[in-house]
Amino acid sequence: MKILRWLLKGRGSAPTPTPTPTPTPAPAPAPAPRQLEHFSKFSPSPLSMKQFLDFGTRNGCEKTSFIFLRQELPVRLSNIMKEINLLPDNLLGTPSVQTVQSWYVQSLTDILEFLDKSPDNYRVLSDFSDALINIRNRHNDVVPTMAQGVLEYKEAFGVDPIINQNVQYFLDRFYLSRISIRMLINQHTLVFDGRSNPAHPKHIGGIDPNCDVIEVVKDACESAKVLCDQYYLTSPEVLINQFNGKTRWHPIQIVYVPSHLYHIFFELFKNAMRATVENNESSTTLPPIKVMVALGNEDLTIKISDRGGGVPLRKIDRLFSYMYSTAPKPVVQNLQTAPLALSTDSVERLPVFNKSAWKHYKSRNEADDWCIPSSEPKNLAKFNNHI
Amino acid sequence: MKILRWLLKGRGSAPTPTPTPTPTPAPAPAPAPRQLEHFSKFSPSPLSMKQFLDFGTRNGCEKTSFIFLRQELPVRLSNIMKEINLLPDNLLGTPSVQTVQSWYVQSLTDILEFLDKSPDNYRVLSDFSDALINIRNRHNDVVPTMAQGVLEYKEAFGVDPIINQNVQYFLDRFYLSRISIRMLINQHTLVFDGRSNPAHPKHIGGIDPNCDVIEVVKDACESAKVLCDQYYLTSPEVLINQFNGKTRWHPIQIVYVPSHLYHIFFELFKNAMRATVENNESSTTLPPIKVMVALGNEDLTIKISDRGGGVPLRKIDRLFSYMYSTAPKPVVQNLQTAPLALSTDSVERLPVFNKSAWKHYKSRNEADDWCIPSSEPKNLAKFNNHI
Repeated sequence: MKILRWLLKGRGSAPTPTPTPTPTPAPAPAPAPRQLEHFSKFSPSPLSMKQFLDFGTRNGCEKTSFIFLRQELPVRLSNIMKEINLLPDNLLGTPSVQTVQSWYVQSLTDILEFLDKSPDNYRVLSDFSDALINIRNRHNDVVPTMAQGVLEYKEAFGVDPIINQNVQYFLDRFYLSRISIRMLINQHTLVFDGRSNPAHPKHIGGIDPNCDVIEVVKDACESAKVLCDQYYLTSPEVLINQFNGKTRWHPIQIVYVPSHLYHIFFELFKNAMRATVENNESSTTLPPIKVMVALGNEDLTIKISDRGGGVPLRKIDRLFSYMYSTAPKPVVQNLQTAPLALSTDSVERLPVFNKSAWKHYKSRNEADDWCIPSSEPKNLAKFNNHI
Repeated sequence: MKILRWLLKGRGSAPTPTPTPTPTPAPAPAPAPRQLEHFSKFSPSPLSMKQFLDFGTRNGCEKTSFIFLRQELPVRLSNIMKEINLLPDNLLGTPSVQTVQSWYVQSLTDILEFLDKSPDNYRVLSDFSDALINIRNRHNDVVPTMAQGVLEYKEAFGVDPIINQNVQYFLDRFYLSRISIRMLINQHTLVFDGRSNPAHPKHIGGIDPNCDVIEVVKDACESAKVLCDQYYLTSPEVLINQFNGKTRWHPIQIVYVPSHLYHIFFELFKNAMRATVENNESSTTLPPIKVMVALGNEDLTIKISDRGGGVPLRKIDRLFSYMYSTAPKPVVQNLQTAPLALSTDSVERLPVFNKSAWKHYKSRNEADDWCIPSSEPKNLAKFNNHI
């Protein structure tokens, strides 16, 4: 279990960085700025990869970006802050969640400072960039701190399926919102810092317009191998295959943020390697991990298969559950469902007609709780008109 | 497209059975019996595979089964009949759905006849068995008739996402309810018909307590191969691998209904073979279809992989959509989303805070719309006490 957590966290023998200590009692967070209500009424404006690229190259203008971000960042922050406020009181009240909430309040306040500043003032643009970097750093530890809040809640109140579902719904949205905000901040600060990235001169901010998928997968694999070798003194072979169905025999390249791809595959390789080693302790050889990278006419698909024993169906739901996977100590035995033999476990799944079923046929005409991108790509240039 | 439908329907050159012709105008269905309301208030009682087996062997008593079924079948029928009534008027009103509804009304009426009959009368038990066989035959064409109803609706009113979602929710439940009802009927009529199945003397009704998975998969594969050879004059090789992680080197056996397993894999093999042939028209050889059958400590997993080109992500949702897959004619071109290049199609997915999101945090404490099996297996013997 310890090894699992160690591998999941991707920490080697280097000193373990501890999550931001949460002060007890938590500081009373500063009151949210009054503009929160105003900005939360706007829907966030989803950008396309093409817009990110275009804006980072030919259309790029720091003033335009500034004017867009001083509106869009408060909208994205306010939208998710309204959801933080709806968390169950006992979770919202944990010191860790209070800390996270105070960071959001502070960052929103920081950006609102620029609402009445002139985009034509070079100093303003420079201060804005510094403010964004400050915000990015302030939120660095949001993920472990939020996880800590969930743990505090679990230890005090336990887990029930409703709370689990609630937390799942919230954290999926919260983390995606965070990625989107950091993406905006990174693009602005990287594209307009006046220097190109010496290591990656062709990158547009964090985006590689010709991201070589095999290279990134290999990098992630190598890093996982180093960790695995350190810990287990062995690691399985990894066989990487590729199939470019779009332009045969060419390397597979996509427009992507390589760091995101790397992060995903580093985690997957760690899991696959751990499972392979632990599931084959009695063998003299380790079965290889196989990777298939396939580019179709529309999609890129990457499949990793290992002989690590798989995950039983009854645990599949927990794989992506924040509440069940951020376990500080093994779950108390009697809370777990005992493994059931096939013949007793297979019970008919039957629909029942009741109020919940009835509701499915009624009043489904609601607004979606995700942004629907307009069919017309957002024209960033129009913000220029307001200058 | 024609070939696709032909393969999907699994029909060779044999005369194509036409779905039950739907009378126009539909006969006004007989009014539902007044007991519908009463029985729909009970939740269906899910049975476990163990109960099916036990009851089919040592505990089996036709009187007990009769007393259980004359209560349970009306409960399952009434529960789903309440949902049929909630379908959109325009769908409910199609001649085909009216026909299906009339079958349910008739079958419910048929069983209610036995409510006041004595289980000690041999004649009653025999009549009950005949009635069940009648009901089973009456409902043979429910699936194509329901599909016809969906087509009639689509042709008259088109498809919108809300209706699609509604129909999906309903049909998933409706078909599972139908399988469960037919399973009960099959077990009763097969177990108590006084003869063992000469072809499968060890089967308990439709259940094989030692179902040899590889054999069933091979059977399904052979049947699909015959169809594929007939139509394309060629078919890909199929390589079947197995891994018994529970008891190494033993054949993989499970307690299962072989006809269900066969049906599933026959469909999957037809799809895989069609895709392989059509995607490799220019090659001299066909890449093999690979099957992996793996039995773990808890689950059986069967994986089929082909080199048929896969399904683009934007079409994945349609794979299991009844409304989109029961297409009588190709979808009109301008209704389809044009394939989008990666760089313009990749638009940020952003959560938005609104009433729909708000609702997710409130009032989730509802009854489930699926039956929750009680932790104690249902004691079928208790029905004996009422005799």
